[in-house]
Amino acid sequence: MERLNRQFDFIREVDKIKQIFRQSYICDGSRKENDAEHSWHLALMAVILSEYANEKIDVLKVISMVLIHDIVEIDAGDTYAYDSAGNATKRERELKAAERIFNILPKDQALYMRGLWDEFEERATPESKFANMLDRVQPLTLNDASEGKAWTEHNVKLSQVISRNESTAEGSEKVWKYVRNNMIEPNVKKGSIIEDM
Amino acid sequence: MERLNRQFDFIREVDKIKQIFRQSYICDGSRKENDAEHSWHLALMAVILSEYANEKIDVLKVISMVLIHDIVEIDAGDTYAYDSAGNATKRERELKAAERIFNILPKDQALYMRGLWDEFEERATPESKFANMLDRVQPLTLNDASEGKAWTEHNVKLSQVISRNESTAEGSEKVWKYVRNNMIEPNVKKGSIIEDM
Repeated sequence: MERLNRQFDFIREVDKIKQIFRQSYICDGSRKENDAEHSWHLALMAVILSEYANEKIDVLKVISMVLIHDIVEIDAGDTYAYDSAGNATKRERELKAAERIFNILPKDQALYMRGLWDEFEERATPESKFANMLDRVQPLTLNDASEGKAWTEHNVKLSQVISRNESTAEGSEKVWKYVRNNMIEPNVKKGSIIEDM
Repeated sequence: MERLNRQFDFIREVDKIKQIFRQSYICDGSRKENDAEHSWHLALMAVILSEYANEKIDVLKVISMVLIHDIVEIDAGDTYAYDSAGNATKRERELKAAERIFNILPKDQALYMRGLWDEFEERATPESKFANMLDRVQPLTLNDASEGKAWTEHNVKLSQVISRNESTAEGSEKVWKYVRNNMIEPNVKKGSIIEDM
């Protein structure tokens, strides 16, 4: 009973990521997407794109990672990829959030989930590299589909996109190449991404 | 290239479930939830609650199933659990949608995903029983957390909740017992669910 209480407390607590909105617009450009929608999209992409991983990956682990990777934003909020001031304090805010939120779970599951989150953040294992690749590629896909709306609003430069994606190829060289050729380059040509390099 | 084109076409197409709204309110009661958020929640619940499955389950399969189980609603729309007229035509509308949407993928993945959706609908395997249990329990959890808002709005009766959940225990007797005692019964006492049996 106590174990199920803690598990359902966690299930209710994480419901809050449905109200954490990101800077990316959904594909039709009508509104911004939230962390729950983003996490669902990454999990499904993990199933569809796992064949392109550079290294052998445990797909269940990748999915578990992406399902919880943004849960810390319940306390820490979403920090836009190209917000340097926000990114300076992000790590500290997120560590504090991880400490509180994962510990709602029974001890063994709290340790497991916290381990997954740490692994995602460290970007050292094949699963974490692949999960981080998805986390970079999904917003690129939405931005491209919504005619570069979020890029234009934030005057995003090509150098920023490239720097943000410096590790994307570590998860999948094939997907990164595809995205660069089919999403980034066309948007530079159209002027949605500012060419500065 | 052609393969990745089809995969990204699918990834963009399914983005539309972020705009398919359900009758359940998110936990804070502020708005209804959509299919993407619902599917994310089920996938995470699969990770947290898998220990309570009646039979041995492949968790990756359960998660893959719940990630795509509502994709047909892009064409068929959401049919409320207690809408009998809508439920009479639901199957036909959803079959047509499955035919169109899964076939956006490369053939092998289209067959795999369609197989998962058929399996979910048939509710015959351990994975499908567990996935369907989650699909029943998640809205109960949201309704309970949001003070029975959706139940009250639709004048839902206990007999309807019990009938809707006639197979929930097949996925997990332990979770069903917990939910009945901790979510359904208290809401009958409070009058959010009408006692008619």
